[in-house]
Amino acid sequence: MIAAPAIQNLLEQLERLPGVGPKSAQRMAYWLLNTDRDTALNLASAIVEVKETVHFCSRCFNYAQEDVCEICGNTARDQGILCVVSEPRDIPPIERTAVFDGVYHVLGGALSPMEGIGPDDLHVAELLRRLSSETVREVVLATNPNVEGETTAAYLARLIKPLGITVTRLASGLPVGGDLEFADEVTLGRALEARLQL
Amino acid sequence: MIAAPAIQNLLEQLERLPGVGPKSAQRMAYWLLNTDRDTALNLASAIVEVKETVHFCSRCFNYAQEDVCEICGNTARDQGILCVVSEPRDIPPIERTAVFDGVYHVLGGALSPMEGIGPDDLHVAELLRRLSSETVREVVLATNPNVEGETTAAYLARLIKPLGITVTRLASGLPVGGDLEFADEVTLGRALEARLQL
Repeated sequence: MIAAPAIQNLLEQLERLPGVGPKSAQRMAYWLLNTDRDTALNLASAIVEVKETVHFCSRCFNYAQEDVCEICGNTARDQGILCVVSEPRDIPPIERTAVFDGVYHVLGGALSPMEGIGPDDLHVAELLRRLSSETVREVVLATNPNVEGETTAAYLARLIKPLGITVTRLASGLPVGGDLEFADEVTLGRALEARLQL
Repeated sequence: MIAAPAIQNLLEQLERLPGVGPKSAQRMAYWLLNTDRDTALNLASAIVEVKETVHFCSRCFNYAQEDVCEICGNTARDQGILCVVSEPRDIPPIERTAVFDGVYHVLGGALSPMEGIGPDDLHVAELLRRLSSETVREVVLATNPNVEGETTAAYLARLIKPLGITVTRLASGLPVGGDLEFADEVTLGRALEARLQL
């Protein structure tokens, strides 16, 4: 054992983070050792707070600290337009475009026959329940532009169109096969503005 | 505010880490949100533990959890050869070469007239005290191969050689202007083996 056990343990925990290898973990660990006590402990508390207080929004399944998320709780948002995404992490990039002013519904994944993920594994029933109880005039299908996302969008379009609700899909412009999470604001903003009715 | 305040705060804390920008912070934050409770809290506790239990070794100023560090506490190490480094983070790369079996002395920086760092700001007095009280036959100066490191090595060589102790410096082979912390094992191992008497 080269380093103190506490440092060794910190290195192991840091390496579990996505995109963090041994060298970045070492750089972070020494930074945490060197930095003042409060800065380091603030990071630790932020992690604890997120795990203790964040759960799913009871309406849209985004992450929330209250019963509903920040977006569902904002009465200024247009409740008549509902954007369907796969994961909570897909919401911030759409918000950053400042093009969309409606509300969201998080599916919690995408249809994938390969991985055995069917409609019952996603929040599809909850979506249909919202569409019958809320006054929604348009559903924007903003699932990822890859096979699973397209399959999910096609499946939802078939379910929702008979309800007399306009169903749209993000316009092309997104690189196909990519991840919505990492799209830049301009591309994603244009894709939102040029969304096509299905 | 797009995200829940706890998530916003976590993002800010993660972005303070070295090498972590907004996109990596977001990736880490969503990973922490998604992962099981224990995995996330283990990282938080590892940070707290390091800040609560790690301090400087009373003998060599490496990081330690006991009174002395893991290396000073290991009686199998050769106490007659002492490797002087700038920072605790310089020790793990030297240990990984498996070429050095002696003990260390951490200066806590390097001489830098530009930044007003003189010998009194480093653990130089403590080094001289060790050299007079311990039986040291060789001091390896392993400061970084840059201006401050070379200046520090030259200064220490002038102080130590009159004591009748062999003073060596890491051999060339290290890329000049680089950081010892990021050297690969083979290059650093060769530099240790081919160290030159000053």
